[in-house]
Amino acid sequence: MTPAGFTGSRLDRADAWRGDPERFAALLADPAARLLRLDGLDPLLEADGTLGWAPLPADPTPLAFLGMLDGAPRFAALGAVPPATRRTRGLEAALALMPPAEAATYAAARSLIDWHARHGFCANCSAVTAAIRAGWARSCPDCGAEHYPRTDPVVIMLAEHGTGDDARVLVGRQASWPPNRYSALAGFVEVGESIEEAVARELFEEAGVRAGDVRFVASQPWPFPSQLMIACIATVDDARLTLDANEIESALWVDRAGIAGALAESEGAPFLAPPPYAIAHTLFERWLAGA
Amino acid sequence: MTPAGFTGSRLDRADAWRGDPERFAALLADPAARLLRLDGLDPLLEADGTLGWAPLPADPTPLAFLGMLDGAPRFAALGAVPPATRRTRGLEAALALMPPAEAATYAAARSLIDWHARHGFCANCSAVTAAIRAGWARSCPDCGAEHYPRTDPVVIMLAEHGTGDDARVLVGRQASWPPNRYSALAGFVEVGESIEEAVARELFEEAGVRAGDVRFVASQPWPFPSQLMIACIATVDDARLTLDANEIESALWVDRAGIAGALAESEGAPFLAPPPYAIAHTLFERWLAGA
Repeated sequence: MTPAGFTGSRLDRADAWRGDPERFAALLADPAARLLRLDGLDPLLEADGTLGWAPLPADPTPLAFLGMLDGAPRFAALGAVPPATRRTRGLEAALALMPPAEAATYAAARSLIDWHARHGFCANCSAVTAAIRAGWARSCPDCGAEHYPRTDPVVIMLAEHGTGDDARVLVGRQASWPPNRYSALAGFVEVGESIEEAVARELFEEAGVRAGDVRFVASQPWPFPSQLMIACIATVDDARLTLDANEIESALWVDRAGIAGALAESEGAPFLAPPPYAIAHTLFERWLAGA
Repeated sequence: MTPAGFTGSRLDRADAWRGDPERFAALLADPAARLLRLDGLDPLLEADGTLGWAPLPADPTPLAFLGMLDGAPRFAALGAVPPATRRTRGLEAALALMPPAEAATYAAARSLIDWHARHGFCANCSAVTAAIRAGWARSCPDCGAEHYPRTDPVVIMLAEHGTGDDARVLVGRQASWPPNRYSALAGFVEVGESIEEAVARELFEEAGVRAGDVRFVASQPWPFPSQLMIACIATVDDARLTLDANEIESALWVDRAGIAGALAESEGAPFLAPPPYAIAHTLFERWLAGA
């Protein structure tokens, strides 16, 4: 089974060390310590598609301790970055090259850097905050509030109608997507609802279908900027669609042959599938495999 | 199967209406509109344990549109609330009385109110922000950033060793808990990791056990202040424990009879189980039922 994109990092986060300033200082002073090489928020890769690492900078840029890798402490620089959370063309190319485990290490660093760049002030009292816990939180000197990086859960799901050879799943597209790109429907989990409830709410709102049983398939982090993608399948009894025109431009029920064709990028496939590092791709694969 | 606590609200969030200020004004002007009755962040219940609702206030307190219930628009007041996110004794008593569907409606309101109370300033630029989208976001007049309520995913999991009648699951306790209370282990999902990876990381950090397959069981919102609890079971091959003394005071492997005894509060049960509205309770029930 192909692992979900952005999973499988070889990094040991060693998060128990984050609260120990002496340990943090020792990690920073370690001659083996390395800094993740970035261009803004985009990765600078080695020729083999792995992440680039450099010696630590001499200037006192605040650094976040990503964890230990191959016996060496690994850091990311927390500084001014462009506010773009969208994927650049260079990044798209890099993601196609990077082994998933490297992309996973990159994802953690990118989300963390981006969060610091956009959360320099205390939301509770407006004071300037400072990085604490080896770069994994920020603390307010005025009101004492501590702020932690956001991880926003998103459900991404296939409605499934029928069983066995008659089974079909629902894919939809947004007007802004590339021509003929379709994917699983998705939406943020809100406060006060479960994953199962968010799946049912989004399927009904976007496509007018009523979810029965909801089953979990897989999850992945999505670092644009910091979602947790939770992939599910929901059985539906009635396949009639009522699309929310603000969200979904069109939607299709697709059978196993159609999904297999889309994943294989076959001529005559009913749609263009999302890239392998997107969990919608994993969700299609797992559905074909019986999930 | 008992539903997970804080799920099953009868409220229709009607979230497609949130972006329409004219619709919001009409909902506020509806004579049937009602305000959730609270004492600080605690619910004021009717005699039958259901939530109390009052006519809308005459003063211009900012209100959040919770959704539609029994044909009437429902609101929560966004105002100064005590910063306590802990459960009061009064709340504990209320939670024991409330039907789960009522507790679910309350959970959404509580998390939303609490988030507004602690996020009045722009984390990006420090300006005073204002509620938008019918109370489901805040907008910064200076830098234009939009801020959405936090939903922080937490994994809560049972390590499972052995199969069939020999199966046992791992429960642990924190030093601050009531005497003999044990529960599933838990921890926040971090940026750049999947649910499955967070389960494995937390089990290894807290108990020194290595997770094999991870299976999802159920989820719930937890409104103290706004977690998404994701309950899983992870198989482990080696039952030897290495406890993180900072997190776990003691841990036990418990068989099916022990878990059943704890849920039934039997004399001689190996531990005191968490209350029914906690998903650890649901996780124990589902494990006994074969999950």
